[in-house]
Amino acid sequence: MNVLVVNTKAYREGTGKNALELAKMMEKVGEEYDVKMIIAVQPSDIFMVAEEVEIDVYSPHMDAIEYGSHTGWILPQAIKKAGAAGTIINHSEHRMKIEDIFMAMGKAREIGLKTIICAGSVEVAKAVATLKPDYVAIEPPELIGGDISVTKAKPEVVKNAVGAVKEINRDVEVLCGAGIKDGRDVAKAIELGAKGILVASGVVKAKKREEVIEEMARAMIR
Amino acid sequence: MNVLVVNTKAYREGTGKNALELAKMMEKVGEEYDVKMIIAVQPSDIFMVAEEVEIDVYSPHMDAIEYGSHTGWILPQAIKKAGAAGTIINHSEHRMKIEDIFMAMGKAREIGLKTIICAGSVEVAKAVATLKPDYVAIEPPELIGGDISVTKAKPEVVKNAVGAVKEINRDVEVLCGAGIKDGRDVAKAIELGAKGILVASGVVKAKKREEVIEEMARAMIR
Amino acid sequence: MNVLVVNTKAYREGTGKNALELAKMMEKVGEEYDVKMIIAVQPSDIFMVAEEVEIDVYSPHMDAIEYGSHTGWILPQAIKKAGAAGTIINHSEHRMKIEDIFMAMGKAREIGLKTIICAGSVEVAKAVATLKPDYVAIEPPELIGGDISVTKAKPEVVKNAVGAVKEINRDVEVLCGAGIKDGRDVAKAIELGAKGILVASGVVKAKKREEVIEEMARAMIR
Amino acid sequence: MNVLVVNTKAYREGTGKNALELAKMMEKVGEEYDVKMIIAVQPSDIFMVAEEVEIDVYSPHMDAIEYGSHTGWILPQAIKKAGAAGTIINHSEHRMKIEDIFMAMGKAREIGLKTIICAGSVEVAKAVATLKPDYVAIEPPELIGGDISVTKAKPEVVKNAVGAVKEINRDVEVLCGAGIKDGRDVAKAIELGAKGILVASGVVKAKKREEVIEEMARAMIR
Repeated sequence: MNVLVVNTKAYREGTGKNALELAKMMEKVGEEYDVKMIIAVQPSDIFMVAEEVEIDVYSPHMDAIEYGSHTGWILPQAIKKAGAAGTIINHSEHRMKIEDIFMAMGKAREIGLKTIICAGSVEVAKAVATLKPDYVAIEPPELIGGDISVTKAKPEVVKNAVGAVKEINRDVEVLCGAGIKDGRDVAKAIELGAKGILVASGVVKAKKREEVIEEMARAMIR
Repeated sequence: MNVLVVNTKAYREGTGKNALELAKMMEKVGEEYDVKMIIAVQPSDIFMVAEEVEIDVYSPHMDAIEYGSHTGWILPQAIKKAGAAGTIINHSEHRMKIEDIFMAMGKAREIGLKTIICAGSVEVAKAVATLKPDYVAIEPPELIGGDISVTKAKPEVVKNAVGAVKEINRDVEVLCGAGIKDGRDVAKAIELGAKGILVASGVVKAKKREEVIEEMARAMIR
Repeated sequence: MNVLVVNTKAYREGTGKNALELAKMMEKVGEEYDVKMIIAVQPSDIFMVAEEVEIDVYSPHMDAIEYGSHTGWILPQAIKKAGAAGTIINHSEHRMKIEDIFMAMGKAREIGLKTIICAGSVEVAKAVATLKPDYVAIEPPELIGGDISVTKAKPEVVKNAVGAVKEINRDVEVLCGAGIKDGRDVAKAIELGAKGILVASGVVKAKKREEVIEEMARAMIR
Repeated sequence: MNVLVVNTKAYREGTGKNALELAKMMEKVGEEYDVKMIIAVQPSDIFMVAEEVEIDVYSPHMDAIEYGSHTGWILPQAIKKAGAAGTIINHSEHRMKIEDIFMAMGKAREIGLKTIICAGSVEVAKAVATLKPDYVAIEPPELIGGDISVTKAKPEVVKNAVGAVKEINRDVEVLCGAGIKDGRDVAKAIELGAKGILVASGVVKAKKREEVIEEMARAMIR
């Protein structure tokens, strides 16, 4: 099933009750169009959102730590218990050390969290694919948060990322991020070989959020 | 009112339902002995715990960020909305840049979060006192998690920290951390001028947690 | 004696032989005008520059470490042996944790390195003054690298920083950074109570570097 | 040609003139035994050492930066100009973000610096091999600085790392680090498929340094 991941970042429109409201919209649209919906919310919102919706709630990050003396770091088991189904790893706003990505991947597998590792280039996408995440999200940093989608500006990046990742491991799926704004961007991403998209402001800060989600979901199943 | 702060760190015994159970014990003892109780829980546990108890729930850390594109960092407004009454800042397991401490302090004041800044030395206690937190917690790093309390091993550190902090700003209270294990440690901390204590494993990993909390609370009001 | 500190950052114009050439200009002008000259060069350039000039060569940063297993970090004793007379600490492009600033200060004092701690606000200037550096350089981050000097845009920041620092410790001198471009900026800084200036692109990237240095030196002794 | 890399870390015995003395020993032994010698010294020692010896001098780290406003970070071009022939990347004491490793690799290739990327596990060795460094140094973190060499404690780690790296790219050579103490460890490393070794305290803190270097070089050419 194709996947629509919405990252609420630290946007006001994606914090607290706003996150819950958005998750409910996604749940509704996801059921209607048979698209897998994932919402990444701030750690302090995971519990509240996960209690109320059936879609997968992800943490936007987790630290490479075990139970113990790690005050103020995000514990994998804690987000899992709070209701998280998975986590983003190495987001462009929270890059991680390669050794920590490896440790976090092992921990995620051990306790049953799904993983999306972000990568800013085809080369990094290939490198992290060796660590067997569920998804690699390719997001050229210069396009993140911008008005031009990666599918328009650099379609070859998406295509090459799919090729590089699949060459390493056929089971790892590629998501397409950075600048995704509408159904056409989504359709193009799928056409280029992506399994879905990772979107933030394009949905969270949209005026008509439900319509945008619906348009994207529809584009995904064509 | 004197203060007992319990930091659950990333201990298994302080994660998820264990955190809630502990918070309820603290609530009960706090009411009985008229001691202010504060529990710092992982961000993903704040909502669940804050909904169920009346005592103050703190975040163990928050990042110096505003609403915006800050995926995976701890947003002050998010923990506040989730129910946090305050936050620890600069814990020895999560040291912060001085500029970020300053920014975080400003943000905490703006949105109404209480603050405990940790310091590993009298000199740093003095430096951060200039930023006007509610509390400075003095914890010599070599004693944290150990079996000897700072009040026994280095009582002059607590006394000097109280002196240094009060010289900068009389309104800032000092908490005593590192190795606090029993009522005698607590009584000594109060005697040395502290307003309360910051304790982690001494309570969270104790076999008889409620008894330890009670013993500490009793020592605080003598 | 008033002080002119030039930070060569990682500018091409301040790397390798370019750093040496600049240091020689500063040496010449410094002697002529009786102004203390300090040049901060990259760690790998300290040895070469310090061998050839009499002015003070500083490291742009040093880490809070001791002799030992710290591969790839900047060891205080190593820069000292290479010829450094001092170091910048907590530059806006390399902010440090408060505990590390404290440790680095102690190490600098122990082995005889002078220290300039940078601060982006009056409040942080006051906080770090408690740690007794030789200089606190006040540089509002929003002005760094810009075309308007702090003395023009926010003269009160310089004045208040001088006041706040001197209130904590009369022996700590204040330097004025951020956007310093010409003699008038320098004269104004001195008038506002600064002991000197910390300048980077204004000198290093100037077309006529020697003239700018001379103009600044002249303004300093008026 | 097989390779002996000595990392002087921030050891007193490897700082300043001590680094130079060690480099000269390595130069002499290297010529005698026809073994390629590489010494990694602190950035502030690169210039002095590189001027005096013919062997390759490496930086222990470099940051993923370009010419510009990056005060206090290690600029690739600066270490190159100072005389470095290459750099260690991602040492266990200085782990790097995967995106920064990728950027640093590109920069190294562009300006002609050789690269050794360290990895703490077979999986990370494989991941970084996709970035085409000259060498991948495999060093299980639990053995670094210890008394048991990886070749004794975990020979399969070295063998598997060689296999994993060569599967990704046949041109990338593997070095064996962590706990290498004598000629037998070296001979075993070569036997397991390594092209050489990365050693620190085993040489730098040895009582008879020249003898140890000679023993290791001899073991390398058997």
